Amino acid sequence: MKVSIIVIGDELLLGQVVDTNSGDIARIISSANWQVSHVVTIGDSENAIRKAVGTALEVSDLVITTGGLGPTKDDITKQVLMEFFGGELYFDNSVLENVIDVCSRRHIEVNELTRMQAMVPSSCEVIQNTVGTAPIMWFEKNGKVLVALPGVPFEMNEMMRKAVFPRLLKRFGNDVNIEHRYLLIFNVIESEIAARLTQFEESLPPYLHLAYLPMQGYVTLRIDGMHADLDHLNHIMDTKQKEIEKEFGSNVIWNENRSLAEILLLLLKRNNFRLSTAESCSGGNIAHALTLIPGSSECYEGGVVAYSNNIKVNILGVKSKSIERYGAVSLPVAEQMVEGVTARVAHTECGIATTGIAGPGGATATKPVGTVCIAVKTPRRILVDSFHFPGSRKRVIERTTNVAIIKLIREIKKLELEKKS
Amino acid sequence: MKVSIIVIGDELLLGQVVDTNSGDIARIISSANWQVSHVVTIGDSENAIRKAVGTALEVSDLVITTGGLGPTKDDITKQVLMEFFGGELYFDNSVLENVIDVCSRRHIEVNELTRMQAMVPSSCEVIQNTVGTAPIMWFEKNGKVLVALPGVPFEMNEMMRKAVFPRLLKRFGNDVNIEHRYLLIFNVIESEIAARLTQFEESLPPYLHLAYLPMQGYVTLRIDGMHADLDHLNHIMDTKQKEIEKEFGSNVIWNENRSLAEILLLLLKRNNFRLSTAESCSGGNIAHALTLIPGSSECYEGGVVAYSNNIKVNILGVKSKSIERYGAVSLPVAEQMVEGVTARVAHTECGIATTGIAGPGGATATKPVGTVCIAVKTPRRILVDSFHFPGSRKRVIERTTNVAIIKLIREIKKLELEKKS
Repeated sequence: MKVSIIVIGDELLLGQVVDTNSGDIARIISSANWQVSHVVTIGDSENAIRKAVGTALEVSDLVITTGGLGPTKDDITKQVLMEFFGGELYFDNSVLENVIDVCSRRHIEVNELTRMQAMVPSSCEVIQNTVGTAPIMWFEKNGKVLVALPGVPFEMNEMMRKAVFPRLLKRFGNDVNIEHRYLLIFNVIESEIAARLTQFEESLPPYLHLAYLPMQGYVTLRIDGMHADLDHLNHIMDTKQKEIEKEFGSNVIWNENRSLAEILLLLLKRNNFRLSTAESCSGGNIAHALTLIPGSSECYEGGVVAYSNNIKVNILGVKSKSIERYGAVSLPVAEQMVEGVTARVAHTECGIATTGIAGPGGATATKPVGTVCIAVKTPRRILVDSFHFPGSRKRVIERTTNVAIIKLIREIKKLELEKKS
Repeated sequence: MKVSIIVIGDELLLGQVVDTNSGDIARIISSANWQVSHVVTIGDSENAIRKAVGTALEVSDLVITTGGLGPTKDDITKQVLMEFFGGELYFDNSVLENVIDVCSRRHIEVNELTRMQAMVPSSCEVIQNTVGTAPIMWFEKNGKVLVALPGVPFEMNEMMRKAVFPRLLKRFGNDVNIEHRYLLIFNVIESEIAARLTQFEESLPPYLHLAYLPMQGYVTLRIDGMHADLDHLNHIMDTKQKEIEKEFGSNVIWNENRSLAEILLLLLKRNNFRLSTAESCSGGNIAHALTLIPGSSECYEGGVVAYSNNIKVNILGVKSKSIERYGAVSLPVAEQMVEGVTARVAHTECGIATTGIAGPGGATATKPVGTVCIAVKTPRRILVDSFHFPGSRKRVIERTTNVAIIKLIREIKKLELEKKS
């Protein structure tokens, strides 16, 4: 079962918008054990769409297109699709009703351009778009299926998950089982992991494969397995996963495919800890990463974005003397920040504080861009470290965010181990 | 001058990692007025790479590949490239020296796998990777160029900007001029914009094109122009841009291609205002958006992530009575939050406060998921509004972030107009 994804939109070829749609679709497709064989991104041009659809229909059983369906002029997708699947445009009243319904829910007037979205090819089955005005179109010919989805990410996601994917599951059964195992590894670089796993990889049966995903501040290992016998597959993959866990011991942060924020929130909840954050150089990104997770308010109290020294001193109670003596980017200040946010501001058992120079400006003779101090607090102790992270401002912020969260994850895991023993 | 981008990596086809590389490359390529004709994303498979490279070399003058060069096993890119460009692998000492240099700067030992990165095809010109161990390879045959870049985003970006792109500019001249103009429009939906611009679009000469990019909470209009005569092109595009500005008047947020955070920081600086933020439902994302911009500390003081009511009351000075009477998600609480952060916490002229229900939980009979109250403060007044944003938690957070920043942008622009008159 091969799948092709075609992403349509000039803005993507100009790099103005980052394409998240193909990744989202691929994640959904993989969950059904189907294989995305390729993703093509093209502009809103008739020729490009014709070429991409032609190739995709040759190599794949299922083709999913996203984009090129909005009410605006540059949309010629419908015409091209009719070249492949035949039919002619007709005015579909059920689509119009849906358009009217969606617009009224949004208190939007239905204008002529929106009305025209009800013009659909007679060769497709319409799936009503309950969160937007562009109808989803399901084409089928010679056993191959093409589904045309809108390009607006939330519309695409909503409709793919709720309407299109369930239909696809009915239409195409599953063949071979595909399983994945994950290990998040901290403090060991990709090439060293690979060196230590050389024999392990050579010992893998042909239907297992190890992949390396270097992240900011850690590496995710993914074991991919493909086998008809699901029990056998799960058994051997669990065994192989344990082998890697043994090899890297305490450097293994986690053994599931979860975000660092999810892992931290899970550990906090499990231990009845609450968390607050005091962010200078990470500028709210840690708070953002945590609050993106539903239910984070159960364990996350909030905190302070202490971008200026005033806020560090007045709200977090950092000593002006310490800033004068050691500088705002220093271990003592990081420590006082985490004390301040947990004791004075939020009254939580756990805390994270960051202070650093994200760049490009702000470097000093002794503190280059990328110098970052991170403090994490548990009921047991405060741990303070300083780092030097290379790269752009964005990268330093991401790296600071990940490493800070990892540090607290490791501290809480240590506490759990001590409790057990 | 046609360009193809090939993105290599199983993790992308599984949707585990979002491909930012192709967008970054496209942005750089567009800046040289070259056209990215298509982007292909494929797995780490010999056949897939062979097929993609073959097609790309047929249709394009320049092919850029990213990924498939790391020190780990699943890399077969070099072999496939030699099928097209000939040559054989040899051990390049200059690459080894570079690898040793990079590793020592990172205090990493050079192991066998890292050493092997010095094996490169004799048919390519090596560009030393100053930020990583995988060498960049420049192939050339029959007037076509293929450049193989590593997949780690920061390495790819760094080397593309600093080493590869300058060489490409030398190698390929520019042909036709391509220009872009932008308009960020608030409070008018895509289809209505399109309806009001029907005549405008029909009046456009064939070498101008109008594109619509719907964002969370606003729409970006982009005018694309292509013409040999640059002066003529700039003149007509400026005229067309002004026509649209006139049509949408005060709904035009900005007329350059900038992020909302950049625009707000620019306005704050221009008016000598400082800003602080009090975020509940946006959970630090506004602070994050602002602090991503270099130099933001000049105008942005920081603020509070007031996720819990305790922090709202104790740090921001929101009245417990108001929370009891109106609920935490209410106009009075939003207003007290912005007063608190600007007057008590950060002492700034301007402020932003958000409180809402991002979901999926937390809805009440009167306040469904997506209910958001936003308060923005300028030296002139505090403006408080409530909204209902549809969609997922992530979407509500993004929408809240954008609309809050837009609100303050509009308030400051009004102040500027009053000063002038």
